[in-house]
Amino acid sequence: MNTDRNRATLASDTQTAWIAAEAEGNVLRTWMIASDGSISEHREIDVPTPTGLEVFDNLVADQDMARPVTIVYSGDLDKSAMVSVPCKPASIANMTVFQSSNWNLYVGATVQQGAPLDLMIHEPNRIAGYLDQDSGFDGVLLLPGTHSKWVHISAEEIVSFRSFMTGEQFDLLAQHSSLKEGLQGSEFDQNAFDAGLGDTLSRPESLAAKLASLRSEIALNKSVSQAKIRARLLAYLIGAELAATRAYWLGQDVVILGVSPLAQRYQHALAAQGAMVRCVDDRGLALAGLRAAHAAIRAQA
Amino acid sequence: MNTDRNRATLASDTQTAWIAAEAEGNVLRTWMIASDGSISEHREIDVPTPTGLEVFDNLVADQDMARPVTIVYSGDLDKSAMVSVPCKPASIANMTVFQSSNWNLYVGATVQQGAPLDLMIHEPNRIAGYLDQDSGFDGVLLLPGTHSKWVHISAEEIVSFRSFMTGEQFDLLAQHSSLKEGLQGSEFDQNAFDAGLGDTLSRPESLAAKLASLRSEIALNKSVSQAKIRARLLAYLIGAELAATRAYWLGQDVVILGVSPLAQRYQHALAAQGAMVRCVDDRGLALAGLRAAHAAIRAQA
Repeated sequence: MNTDRNRATLASDTQTAWIAAEAEGNVLRTWMIASDGSISEHREIDVPTPTGLEVFDNLVADQDMARPVTIVYSGDLDKSAMVSVPCKPASIANMTVFQSSNWNLYVGATVQQGAPLDLMIHEPNRIAGYLDQDSGFDGVLLLPGTHSKWVHISAEEIVSFRSFMTGEQFDLLAQHSSLKEGLQGSEFDQNAFDAGLGDTLSRPESLAAKLASLRSEIALNKSVSQAKIRARLLAYLIGAELAATRAYWLGQDVVILGVSPLAQRYQHALAAQGAMVRCVDDRGLALAGLRAAHAAIRAQA
Repeated sequence: MNTDRNRATLASDTQTAWIAAEAEGNVLRTWMIASDGSISEHREIDVPTPTGLEVFDNLVADQDMARPVTIVYSGDLDKSAMVSVPCKPASIANMTVFQSSNWNLYVGATVQQGAPLDLMIHEPNRIAGYLDQDSGFDGVLLLPGTHSKWVHISAEEIVSFRSFMTGEQFDLLAQHSSLKEGLQGSEFDQNAFDAGLGDTLSRPESLAAKLASLRSEIALNKSVSQAKIRARLLAYLIGAELAATRAYWLGQDVVILGVSPLAQRYQHALAAQGAMVRCVDDRGLALAGLRAAHAAIRAQA
């Protein structure tokens, strides 16, 4: 926490009016928002998962704000509401309100799908943030990450979605498997990726055999480049994901929320399959979604 | 090491004539074989991988045997020979001989395949052990384990083979992934396995999505049985392996070398697909293969 920045805040006219907060895994991001909409302070805090309500007591404890403080929150929480698709990604009707003498806490609903069974916790708010700036969007949003999400949007609603444990599979193999000695470093061989991707799209069921082949290659050829092994492994995992999501990207307008190297691998792979795809910067989306939710809460009050 | 058994050995007529040894990962198994073929001692020792030649000096150091001692060995070793398929699983022509004042070491060749790239190190000797007792076998051998092997045998030769990292994937997910809380214990729900298998055989590319669905099920339903989660995960992994190995089991005579619970899951899954499949006890196969190699070495000497 930046004490100097806090002091500056308290001396100015832009006193904090409400707090926006998002939890992703065990990281809680908070933005103190002034009445003119400017950000007076931003923090990232480690919190336990699932987050308990005491986290919000701690959050307002050192804030010179009138009680109860309005907090708009997206993320894991015991007892938050569930809504099933099709649904709007964030809607005032779907928020759960918790009240104490310290705060009024508005929590976005977890979005659930029955078959195939699936959940989105912090993603719906980011999707709302994207739709706030591209309100007529009709197509598919891809949110890459540890558990990537493919989300079909139509008429401002989430129609269906599907999560893939692709990122976690990569991390498990890189950190704990018999392949890990071949997967250090961060270099990347684009040609090896392209070849591995085409191979996997035509035979997506053979992941476990491809992993064993990589193991043999590392054992036989100690000088094989790690950039090549890393690129092939990612091609096998992303290739299987693309094989399983054809209905999401074939003939669809696909927007990837993110510009990370991983986001760019997905973009490259999808473009190579002839998909219409672009990456957008996702850094402001969580806050944009929380701002839109706050505006809706104020309009209703 | 059993000291009483050693003492009994040295007092009897059945003095050790040669040593059979197999390494699997970092476990070295040794059998001291008397001139009448009986086993005078059996040990399991932890060794580094790849095994260095000094391991064999240690092995004979406390043995009251004429030098050099004949050792027949199957397993990882720096500088052992490679043979490519098609080849006999073990052949005196393919063995590398290392000599010192202490031992004559006969090492079975590693079997290699160029495309798809693949390796077998200790398995060829076990396959030779099986063929020694079923010499006319023509069909497919499946060796389940951390990296399962499917091996097509015809006219006493390995025609082709394919390894799958299925067992290691299961262990990584059970020990290190976000699913691990749902994968403790060892109970198994056969109905959940059967349903998961059928589902996976029809859509084998969607493993990462099925893993994410399991994660959601654990998060939503804390009381879901671990027997069900464990059975589904194994069904997804084995189902993908069966989808990728149809050419190995469709219309083939399949023999699974092993009677472990994992071997029985493969048998059940293959039988459900209409394959002709049986499990055989694999406990004597490593030694049977080493005995056959020793007989060939003596016949040639």
